[in-house]
Amino acid sequence: MPDNNQTHPFDQAVELTATSPYAYQGHIPQTYDNMVGPFGGIIIAVILNGILSHKEHQGNPISITVNFAGPIEDAPFELKVRPIRTNRSNQHWIAEITQGSQVAATATAVLAIRQETWMARETHAPAAPNPEDVESWSAPPEPKWIQRYNFRFIRGELTLSGQPAKDSESLLWVRDEPARPLDFLSLAAISDVFFPRVFIQRQQLGVASTVSITTYFHADVSSFARQASRPILAAARGQRFYRGYFNQVAELWSDEGDLLASSNQMVYFKD
Amino acid sequence: MPDNNQTHPFDQAVELTATSPYAYQGHIPQTYDNMVGPFGGIIIAVILNGILSHKEHQGNPISITVNFAGPIEDAPFELKVRPIRTNRSNQHWIAEITQGSQVAATATAVLAIRQETWMARETHAPAAPNPEDVESWSAPPEPKWIQRYNFRFIRGELTLSGQPAKDSESLLWVRDEPARPLDFLSLAAISDVFFPRVFIQRQQLGVASTVSITTYFHADVSSFARQASRPILAAARGQRFYRGYFNQVAELWSDEGDLLASSNQMVYFKD
Repeated sequence: MPDNNQTHPFDQAVELTATSPYAYQGHIPQTYDNMVGPFGGIIIAVILNGILSHKEHQGNPISITVNFAGPIEDAPFELKVRPIRTNRSNQHWIAEITQGSQVAATATAVLAIRQETWMARETHAPAAPNPEDVESWSAPPEPKWIQRYNFRFIRGELTLSGQPAKDSESLLWVRDEPARPLDFLSLAAISDVFFPRVFIQRQQLGVASTVSITTYFHADVSSFARQASRPILAAARGQRFYRGYFNQVAELWSDEGDLLASSNQMVYFKD
Repeated sequence: MPDNNQTHPFDQAVELTATSPYAYQGHIPQTYDNMVGPFGGIIIAVILNGILSHKEHQGNPISITVNFAGPIEDAPFELKVRPIRTNRSNQHWIAEITQGSQVAATATAVLAIRQETWMARETHAPAAPNPEDVESWSAPPEPKWIQRYNFRFIRGELTLSGQPAKDSESLLWVRDEPARPLDFLSLAAISDVFFPRVFIQRQQLGVASTVSITTYFHADVSSFARQASRPILAAARGQRFYRGYFNQVAELWSDEGDLLASSNQMVYFKD
């Protein structure tokens, strides 16, 4: 655990400096490096941070979509955010990350002020042993972002055996490393924490990169207060792998069995 | 079936007139009216049409996200489309629908040139009787867009009995009415063809509107050639209904059992 005087690596990574009313400068540190450029989840969190720290923001995140147009170099980037329309109970944003003349990512997001309504949980969390009864994964040193999470695989671990798995599903407990209280930013990042499903299915590495990810938030501030910094249950699977692209479906659950977020992505891959 | 000299209502509805290099004017006819403004699916199709009919477009759709910021009035709208970045095998777009000074919808899309790769179907189509063995739904006359589809419910029909259903799942065969060969535009529209899951769960009408929808395309031109204008199998369910919002998960299958599209949306509702 970090002492209280030290900023958590996650908060360092999402840090932004306002440069104009609707623009920030940021620079994701190498602690979150992926194969090429930073871990996608930290990019989602950076964009969401730009929106949620803007003085015009109203409400909490309901959805965010990030399209990854090209790699982010290890250098400062510009993040532009723009509130497109503010309604009584929701607010629409668009955002863009650029480096020089190149757009690296585009995003749209919806914030909302939630009201009390009829509620129902229709999907239930998969059965899982308690996190303390599941061994922590001894992650390889690279890519570096893997060190920023504590993974406890129940099934669907990346073994690289080369023996195809029966499916591409993974189920695991996961939290920031070191532990950090869950919030909208870290939940957004964790929604992209799954290795590409084609690696799990085939149990071999290859070329794969997310082109578009959408995360829906079913959590609110009270959900985070209850969850604190304990691991959340994370499940992901692919549906169709077809001619260079596959989709990946994921759910993130509180340890009380509440669906905190659902997330989907389309991933480019080649053999 | 329309005769060959008559434009299908769907093609009339998505028609656009270029007004500048990156802008069009359109006007969705009342034949696709929903409760307030046009059916969301036709709005997705209009935006996608603006991108796919643009001379700079490269490749076929992989994903599209549309955020509905406000209703579209029964009047002409402006659709702006912008290619943000063109890579070797994919292309990123953003788009916006405006009426006067108000933004009604924002969108992002990814197109790609697919390559042959390893392939796998991991999710399988739910068991269903043949479409010709399922009765066509006698749809009410309003909202009008319902008349633009042929629905054959296997389960999860909207009965309005007021008796809560065991879940919010629907399974149905669906096609354009009159029949029309499936393509990217009509598949995009059909991805939003499901009634709000809260209506199905509770079997009563209420206020509900999609704030964000994302559709992933697992089909290519050869998929459409095989499917032609026959009904496709459509499944949708909710996962969590929480404080004014729920998510809705959907899959669209060819009658040969291929996943053609997967789609997710966040829906605002009140009691």
